[in-house]
Amino acid sequence: MAKAPKTAIQPTRADDYPEWYQQVIRAADLAESSPVRGCMVIKPWGYRLWENMQRALDDMFKATGHQNAYFPLFIPMSFLEKEAEHVEGFAKECAVVTHHRLEPDPDGGLRPAGALEEPLIVRPTSETIIGATYAKWVQSHRDLPILINQWANVVRWEMRTRMFLRTAEFLWQEGHTVHATSEEAIAETQQMINVYADFAQNWMAMPVTIGSKTPAERFPGAVETLSIEAMMQDRKALQAGTSHFLGQNFSKAQEIMFQAENGERQYAWTTSWGVSTRLVGALIMSHSDDDGLVLPPRLAPDQIVILPIYRDDSQRAEVLQHVESIKSELESLSFFGQTLRVAIDDRDVRGGEKKWHHVKRGVPIRLEVGPKDIEKGSVFVGRRDQAKSFGMSRDEFIATAPAILEEIQSGLFNRALQLRNENTKVIKTESDFRDFFSSSNEKELHGGFAHCHFADEQSLESLLKELKVTIRCIPSEDNDEAGTCFSTGRAAEKKAIFAKAY
Amino acid sequence: MAKAPKTAIQPTRADDYPEWYQQVIRAADLAESSPVRGCMVIKPWGYRLWENMQRALDDMFKATGHQNAYFPLFIPMSFLEKEAEHVEGFAKECAVVTHHRLEPDPDGGLRPAGALEEPLIVRPTSETIIGATYAKWVQSHRDLPILINQWANVVRWEMRTRMFLRTAEFLWQEGHTVHATSEEAIAETQQMINVYADFAQNWMAMPVTIGSKTPAERFPGAVETLSIEAMMQDRKALQAGTSHFLGQNFSKAQEIMFQAENGERQYAWTTSWGVSTRLVGALIMSHSDDDGLVLPPRLAPDQIVILPIYRDDSQRAEVLQHVESIKSELESLSFFGQTLRVAIDDRDVRGGEKKWHHVKRGVPIRLEVGPKDIEKGSVFVGRRDQAKSFGMSRDEFIATAPAILEEIQSGLFNRALQLRNENTKVIKTESDFRDFFSSSNEKELHGGFAHCHFADEQSLESLLKELKVTIRCIPSEDNDEAGTCFSTGRAAEKKAIFAKAY
Repeated sequence: MAKAPKTAIQPTRADDYPEWYQQVIRAADLAESSPVRGCMVIKPWGYRLWENMQRALDDMFKATGHQNAYFPLFIPMSFLEKEAEHVEGFAKECAVVTHHRLEPDPDGGLRPAGALEEPLIVRPTSETIIGATYAKWVQSHRDLPILINQWANVVRWEMRTRMFLRTAEFLWQEGHTVHATSEEAIAETQQMINVYADFAQNWMAMPVTIGSKTPAERFPGAVETLSIEAMMQDRKALQAGTSHFLGQNFSKAQEIMFQAENGERQYAWTTSWGVSTRLVGALIMSHSDDDGLVLPPRLAPDQIVILPIYRDDSQRAEVLQHVESIKSELESLSFFGQTLRVAIDDRDVRGGEKKWHHVKRGVPIRLEVGPKDIEKGSVFVGRRDQAKSFGMSRDEFIATAPAILEEIQSGLFNRALQLRNENTKVIKTESDFRDFFSSSNEKELHGGFAHCHFADEQSLESLLKELKVTIRCIPSEDNDEAGTCFSTGRAAEKKAIFAKAY
Repeated sequence: MAKAPKTAIQPTRADDYPEWYQQVIRAADLAESSPVRGCMVIKPWGYRLWENMQRALDDMFKATGHQNAYFPLFIPMSFLEKEAEHVEGFAKECAVVTHHRLEPDPDGGLRPAGALEEPLIVRPTSETIIGATYAKWVQSHRDLPILINQWANVVRWEMRTRMFLRTAEFLWQEGHTVHATSEEAIAETQQMINVYADFAQNWMAMPVTIGSKTPAERFPGAVETLSIEAMMQDRKALQAGTSHFLGQNFSKAQEIMFQAENGERQYAWTTSWGVSTRLVGALIMSHSDDDGLVLPPRLAPDQIVILPIYRDDSQRAEVLQHVESIKSELESLSFFGQTLRVAIDDRDVRGGEKKWHHVKRGVPIRLEVGPKDIEKGSVFVGRRDQAKSFGMSRDEFIATAPAILEEIQSGLFNRALQLRNENTKVIKTESDFRDFFSSSNEKELHGGFAHCHFADEQSLESLLKELKVTIRCIPSEDNDEAGTCFSTGRAAEKKAIFAKAY
C-alpha cells in the first residue's frame, strides 16, 4: 500500500476540515482557548497579524474622513430596551454585570456584593450607548455628519464557540455615523462595505461578493444590511464584514434630532459597520494548506525570514554578518508602499525544525544562507506558496524580492478566486439545488455558492432548514435579470447566493 | 477697580484648580462623562492624543524586546482568590458578571437570567488570568523569558471618579513578564520604569522622579513597586506609571514552574508594569494654562494648524492654494524622526472663534495666512506657549518650524522642571513639615514635594492622615545619605518624597 505523503498538519483538510482548522491555529501559534469559557488568548503571532489588519483598515477609515473615539464598555439595561428589534437580537447572549464588589462568603471564598440598582450589559455592540451620546452632540445640521469609529472588545455569549470565528469576547471595530439625509447615510453604508471589500481582496487576497441581506438576516434594528461574503476552502460561506443603514430607527429610539437649515427639527439618519478578529479565521480558511498557515504578504508579520546556517562559532560570525547585510538591503526596499518586514531566526534549533516552524506560521518567503552560499553569492529560497525550494543569486533575489511577494499575493487571490468560480453554480430547479447541497456532511465539502432566483424567503424556510443552507446575500452587481424562483416557480426579480455558512 | 484679564477657561487655575481641570477637558473636546456611572467618552481629539502616546510607548516596548498579545476580559472569581493580598486589593472595586442573558420581566422591561455557575470579574488588572496561561506555556528554562504586553480596557469600581485621573473603566497597557531568575526580573522591572520615565520626560515634557513605593503603597501582591511621580501645577503629586517586581508570589499562586538547566523544577519570577489614560490627565495638569490645553509638540495630534484668511471666493481659491503649498512643504520636514503633522482649518467659522478653538485644544503653532501675507511672502505665527503672535517670512518659518517645535517641547519641560524645583524642599522637622502642607485646601496650592528622612511608615500614619499627605516614593537616585526621621528623630537610611496626591 502506498504511504500517504506526510503533512505538517494532521488531520488534513480532506480528512477533517474543522479539526484541521484548529490544528493550523495551534501549529501557527496564533491563539489558544482560555480558562474562561468561550474566550480565547490571542498569542503574539496572531496579534501581530491582527495589528497589521488594524493598521491597514484604520488608514482606510481615516482616508474616508473618519476619526477614532472610545465609548464605555457597559450599557445600562434600559438603553438596550429602547429599540425593540435590537434587544430581541441581543438579549439572549449578554454578559450581565449585577454587582460591584466581592465580599467573603461565610462558607469560604468570595461572593458578589454591592448589587447595582440597574444591571449593566457588557456591550455586544454599541449602537445604544453611542447613540445616547450622539443625541447630546447633535443639535444643528452644522453638527453633521458625525463620522466616528471605535476599536474595542465586545461580548456575545455564544453557546458554541470556535476560535476567531465565534468567541464570547472578540476584538473589532465599529463605525457609527450620523447624517442629515437618508441619501448620505445610504452612501456611507455603501462606501464602507466597499472599503471592506477592498481590504478583503487587496490585503487579505480573499475574493468577496458584496450584497444585501434579506430581512431575516439583517442586523437587529437595521433597515438594510450590506455584507461581504467569501467562500472558504470547504465551500462554506463566511460573512466577513457588514455595513448597516439604520434609517431613523436608532435616532428615534435615542432622540438623535437636529435643526435643519429650514429650521425644522428632524430625526437624523444613522449607520454602523464593523469587522472583527473573525477576519483572522477567514484568512486561515482561505489560503492555508495541509502544512499549516499561508499568509498573504501584505499582512504577514514577517514577509521574509532568513535562516542562517553554520557549523561552528567562526562560521556563525561570518554568516550572521552576511545575513544582516541581506536584511538591511531588503529593508531598504518597499512593498505596496511599506518597508519590507524581514526577520532573522538565529535560535539554537535544528535546521529542519526551524524551517517547519516558519512553514507552519505561514511566512511567505524563507531564505537559507550558509557558508557555501556566501562563497557562491547565492541564497536558497523557499516560497510558502510552492512546494519546492530553489537556489538563486543573492543580488537577483534582493532585486526581485518585492516582485516575488507581489506574485505570491496575487497568486493567493487567484487561487481563491478559481476555487470560488469552480464551486459557484447558477441553479434553477429545486432538484438541482438539493443535489448541489446534499452530499455535505461536517467533514466533507459543502456544495458551494448556488446563485438562484428567489421570490421571498419565507416560502423557502423549511427547505433551507432541511439542507442547513442560508441565504448569504443578494449580490449588488450583475443581478438585474428577472427570472423564476428555483423552488416555488414564482416570478423573481433578483438572484441570491445560497450556501452553507460559518 | 481694574478688570481682571479675560481668560478662555473659567475658573482660572488660581480660582479653582479642580474645576479648571474639568473645563480644560471640555474646552479642548478631549472627553466627557457618559451615561454610565464613572465611565467617560473619549472624544476624537482626546483619542488622537492617546493614540500618539500608544504609538510611542508601543515602539519603546518593542525596542526592548516585548510583543503584544491579548487575554480575556473576564477573570473567574476563583482565580482572584489565589493570591491573598491581590484579592484584598481589588475585591472592593470589581464589576461582577453573574448572568449571561436577559429575559422579559413579568413587571415589564427586562431582567438578568441564566445565572453563571461561577461569577466572572471584569479584569481590574490581569496578573491572575495571564498567569494561568503562562503556567501552561512555561515548561523549561528554554521557554523563558516571556516578554508580553497587552493594550486593553480595565474596570475598577471607583466611588469618586474624575475624568482621565480615576474612572471606572480606563484604557491602559499592562506588561507581564516571566523570568528564570530574580535578578533578571528585577532588571526588567527597572528597565520598564526607565522606559516610562523616558516617555514622560522626552515625549510628555513632564519631569518625573523614579523611586520605590513603601510597603503600604505597593501593588497588591508585589514584592517591590517602582513608580514615576510627577508634580502637577497645583503642587500635588501624580503617580504616572508603575512597574512591579512580583517575586514568586504569583508564580506560586498560579503554579508557573520551569525545569532549570540542572533539571530542578523551580518557580519562575514575574513582573508587571502599566500606564493608562491617566497620563492624559497628567499631561493636562502639567502644561495647560488659563486659556486651555497646552500640548507638547511630540504628542500633539496636529503640531501646526494653518488658518486661511480671505474675504470672498476669488481670494479663497488663491489663499487655499497657497496654504496647501505651505502644508506640503512642512510635511516634507520631520520632527524627532516623524513627518510634521499639519492641518488646515477651512471651516466656515469667524476668525477669532477659529483661533480660540485651536488655542483651547493646545495646538503648538497656529499660522494665519491671508492675501496680504501672500503678497509679502510672510505668515503670522501664534505659539501656544507664548501670549504674543508675530509676523515672519514664509520661507524662514518653514525652514525653522522643526526648531520652533523643539524649542516649545523643551520649553514646556523646563517650565515644569522649574515649578517642581521651586516647590521641592528638604524638610527636617515635623513643624516645618506641618507648615509646608498646612495652608492647603481643595482650591489652593498643596505645598509641594517634601524630601524627608523617615524611619518607618507606621509611626507616621496619623500625622500623614491628619495632613492628607502620602509617601510618594523613595527616590532611587541621590538618596544614599543617612539622616534622622523628621518626625520621630530616629535614625533613617533614606529620604522619601512626601506630597498630597491625586
